[in-house]
Amino acid sequence: MQLGMVGLGKMGGNMAGRLRDKGHEVVGFDFDPELRDVADLAELVQRLAAPRTIWLMVPAGAPTRETVDRLAELLEAGDLVVEGGNSHYADDRRCAEHLRERGIGYVDAGVSGGVWGRQEGYGIMVGGDPEDVARGEPVFTELTPDEGGYVKAGGVGAGHFVKMVHNGIEYGMMQAFAEGYELMAASDIVDDVPGTFESWREGTVVRSWLLDLLVCALREDPGLDAIRGYAEDSGEGRWTVQAAVDHAVPAPVITAALFARFASRQDDSPAMKVVAALRNQFGGHEVTASGDDAAENSPGS
Amino acid sequence: MQLGMVGLGKMGGNMAGRLRDKGHEVVGFDFDPELRDVADLAELVQRLAAPRTIWLMVPAGAPTRETVDRLAELLEAGDLVVEGGNSHYADDRRCAEHLRERGIGYVDAGVSGGVWGRQEGYGIMVGGDPEDVARGEPVFTELTPDEGGYVKAGGVGAGHFVKMVHNGIEYGMMQAFAEGYELMAASDIVDDVPGTFESWREGTVVRSWLLDLLVCALREDPGLDAIRGYAEDSGEGRWTVQAAVDHAVPAPVITAALFARFASRQDDSPAMKVVAALRNQFGGHEVTASGDDAAENSPGS
Amino acid sequence: MQLGMVGLGKMGGNMAGRLRDKGHEVVGFDFDPELRDVADLAELVQRLAAPRTIWLMVPAGAPTRETVDRLAELLEAGDLVVEGGNSHYADDRRCAEHLRERGIGYVDAGVSGGVWGRQEGYGIMVGGDPEDVARGEPVFTELTPDEGGYVKAGGVGAGHFVKMVHNGIEYGMMQAFAEGYELMAASDIVDDVPGTFESWREGTVVRSWLLDLLVCALREDPGLDAIRGYAEDSGEGRWTVQAAVDHAVPAPVITAALFARFASRQDDSPAMKVVAALRNQFGGHEVTASGDDAAENSPGS
Amino acid sequence: MQLGMVGLGKMGGNMAGRLRDKGHEVVGFDFDPELRDVADLAELVQRLAAPRTIWLMVPAGAPTRETVDRLAELLEAGDLVVEGGNSHYADDRRCAEHLRERGIGYVDAGVSGGVWGRQEGYGIMVGGDPEDVARGEPVFTELTPDEGGYVKAGGVGAGHFVKMVHNGIEYGMMQAFAEGYELMAASDIVDDVPGTFESWREGTVVRSWLLDLLVCALREDPGLDAIRGYAEDSGEGRWTVQAAVDHAVPAPVITAALFARFASRQDDSPAMKVVAALRNQFGGHEVTASGDDAAENSPGS
Repeated sequence: MQLGMVGLGKMGGNMAGRLRDKGHEVVGFDFDPELRDVADLAELVQRLAAPRTIWLMVPAGAPTRETVDRLAELLEAGDLVVEGGNSHYADDRRCAEHLRERGIGYVDAGVSGGVWGRQEGYGIMVGGDPEDVARGEPVFTELTPDEGGYVKAGGVGAGHFVKMVHNGIEYGMMQAFAEGYELMAASDIVDDVPGTFESWREGTVVRSWLLDLLVCALREDPGLDAIRGYAEDSGEGRWTVQAAVDHAVPAPVITAALFARFASRQDDSPAMKVVAALRNQFGGHEVTASGDDAAENSPGS
Repeated sequence: MQLGMVGLGKMGGNMAGRLRDKGHEVVGFDFDPELRDVADLAELVQRLAAPRTIWLMVPAGAPTRETVDRLAELLEAGDLVVEGGNSHYADDRRCAEHLRERGIGYVDAGVSGGVWGRQEGYGIMVGGDPEDVARGEPVFTELTPDEGGYVKAGGVGAGHFVKMVHNGIEYGMMQAFAEGYELMAASDIVDDVPGTFESWREGTVVRSWLLDLLVCALREDPGLDAIRGYAEDSGEGRWTVQAAVDHAVPAPVITAALFARFASRQDDSPAMKVVAALRNQFGGHEVTASGDDAAENSPGS
Repeated sequence: MQLGMVGLGKMGGNMAGRLRDKGHEVVGFDFDPELRDVADLAELVQRLAAPRTIWLMVPAGAPTRETVDRLAELLEAGDLVVEGGNSHYADDRRCAEHLRERGIGYVDAGVSGGVWGRQEGYGIMVGGDPEDVARGEPVFTELTPDEGGYVKAGGVGAGHFVKMVHNGIEYGMMQAFAEGYELMAASDIVDDVPGTFESWREGTVVRSWLLDLLVCALREDPGLDAIRGYAEDSGEGRWTVQAAVDHAVPAPVITAALFARFASRQDDSPAMKVVAALRNQFGGHEVTASGDDAAENSPGS
Repeated sequence: MQLGMVGLGKMGGNMAGRLRDKGHEVVGFDFDPELRDVADLAELVQRLAAPRTIWLMVPAGAPTRETVDRLAELLEAGDLVVEGGNSHYADDRRCAEHLRERGIGYVDAGVSGGVWGRQEGYGIMVGGDPEDVARGEPVFTELTPDEGGYVKAGGVGAGHFVKMVHNGIEYGMMQAFAEGYELMAASDIVDDVPGTFESWREGTVVRSWLLDLLVCALREDPGLDAIRGYAEDSGEGRWTVQAAVDHAVPAPVITAALFARFASRQDDSPAMKVVAALRNQFGGHEVTASGDDAAENSPGS
């Protein structure tokens, strides 16, 4: 099997490696000359025999759209593009439409697994027309673990939609562990917080890969002293909340997890300035930098 | 009318002042010798003619309980204690029981109005046996505005219960304004945030006393630059959430407002350390003090 | 002063009425022949002297966009369109751009006040180029109360942006009162819930127009027995949450209020089916229509 | 090894079975004559050789307290009580104190694993004085899986505290999956929701025991059609939230999960009646049983 891979960073590079380990031919392109096999997309297309399959693993948004536009010019009818990055499902529809006019197939593939995927296999969730998906299936099943990890989720966009939801769920699960950690650490009753998480790996309801990772992190740094409580959020978490709002689906847990990340990145909270200002106005207390007396603890607030 | 007032701080002092302005005799006791009329509770009781009414305006918890215990020894059957502080409604029941054994009445009074109350009148919400409430009613109606502001909410504890709920609602309203402020300030589209709040005072759905106070605060400091986003919470906000949990009442807004205050007081969030540590584990990214690249923005997280 | 008004429903009709009461000439168009003065937009434009001001009060989305497109053809350079409906601020930018190419001005005006506005005046928040805003100002100040209620919030879109935020705040405030109501009603301690809200109208921190309205509602129906707990949400609540997500602003209260509305409209919750199914799987309990025994109350869940 | 087991229901019975399978002597008491080996607690104590270990597996609250009180009378110095039910950590402290006066040891043990534990082993989290814990350790390690699942979390109460937090985390994780399910089901883009969850069992970040259980549930009933979206909550979820509030720990995800369960059990929401009533008041719309027109979608709300 022969495959073109565009984007040879941490994810694309590892995926190409896994496929090569299994005996497949992967021709790779990247902006970094040290990583690539070909100098540009034109050469990539030339090096592959028709009908070609080209896998995109480049940042979502403009880079992916521009790559699709360029491939639309270079590829021929019967070729297939697999968008394995984190595109928004609405973008998938636009790209698929654009390629379809030229007879080129399009499959969107949500890929999960992070740095562990090369060895353990990736979770792959795909969306697309059945014939396009069938074309890419040999690649998909080589990338996933032997036991599963592959789903045809639906039409174009469905792969990225369910990957987006996967990440939303991931946010909620991480935040659940995080809140539990903070509560145990804040209590004066729990002496062994890392050992407690360690014990939960067997026999409990919360056992999970995230728990395993948390145990690893706590082995390295039992009080997480070297880590600041600062968390980026990905576009996918935001998109999940926005999709929930669009579909009138209550998603309080996923949203709370997203908002906790937003708040973690603020040095000072404009909203809480307002709360402090209001308490000052009606309570008659001084506002200070280090926290005023509790205005509302006094009678009459 | 004659009244004993225990606790002559910001609230108790202003309430005594309002009653005196209306021609009533108030004998006050406070630990601060500069504020008080009598040296101790015994002298206070002596100075009042039976049947006495004594209003407590001291901090909730131990100080209130100890004052009630001491008054139980000093007062005689037919006297009345009005607990105007911020006691928990369960404490009211214990205090009332204790006094009732000695024939002394007990009314719990939730008081709202802050520093504006002396002039504008207070909101007074009372709980107690009807005969006890009737005894205290002349005082209650002098403290409230002419137009209302007084409610007999129910039996012992009901006054503080509804005052507690009032404060919970207040938390939610404040946080709603706070979030709206932050969103307008974060956008690049709104040029006049203070003016917008000012305009809302007329003709809109959100017009309210809290809005008036926010407008005052923004007149003094249009960007709230002098105020840190740090907000204490009162026992009453916590009690509201705990009562909601006890009664299986979903209270997401009040609880979110409370949690936002908790978070505002943290220099670093232990929970978000966990989230950052987990992202580091599965994304293979470095954790840094100032925020790492968005691990989940890269494909495959 | 002369004005064209497109859309003579509850809002547009009342606004036209208020302007006519003040002696201005309003020429109105509506699809309903009973309400309108002119048969179509062309006649409306003909009836007004240049430079014309035309106020749109039609549903957001396609109806507004189509009306703007039609007016772009009919109006001439120097005329002004005021979009007083609930357009999204991004739509405002598109409409303004389209009209600007023809020399026609555009102001977006967020209008608050509901059915009370004709008499009390409306809150008007406008966005647009300063010269366009200045052109419309005589109308804006006639619609607002004498004391205020008018703000120039910023450039094109700012009026609808702040109106959107206003509605988001409104959601949070309403939900705060709602949660307080439910908690008092659920307790066995509060005998007079309507009277409690009534008392809060004077001297308290939560006094507000929404409280006044709640008191009205409770006077009509003290237990709200005739009303189902079912609440629609407007586009503006959703847009506020989406704007908060776009700007990385934590908005837990406004979002919780929105999600509570979503949930209120569900006969059965798919999400809670999952929770029930999971409890059944690990707890070994039967799932029933009316609630199973508490699996997690038993040890070991 | 010899053990007394009080409470032979689903959990206690299975635990006794696991211990007997491993060759230990378990003498059991239950109110159900069909399940028990002895007629009452007195006979249970008689049948065991000193120093005795008695494991309690009875409902939390009064049943546990009464059993402890009775054992305090029957046991002798040097015996040990292990409270394996779901007591609140504050109750543990009271029970331990009561037994310590008589020289009887007390260990609180949080037990996780549900109906799967007999075969796979339980998660056991214990709290108590080190010598008491050491006494019970042979039992604890027989109940847990070979690979782990056991933690000495801290002093008296710590075992139940961390079990409580475990359940709180469990709530959050379940709700995260639940929201993801509902969002995929609500979209028109995902054709194979059960298959998507199935695929996530390999290679993804969300792989977990709860995911495995959800896959089982969806295999039985792909649309969860037979299950109502109605979920009980355990005392432990409530206690987690209350402990978070007590310790000023923001716990938005765990709390949102708890509130979602509360809401799932309401036929009609009193809070949302208030929201509907307010919308009716300011929007001028009729309130109906099946939802009114969106008042706020119309301009001017």
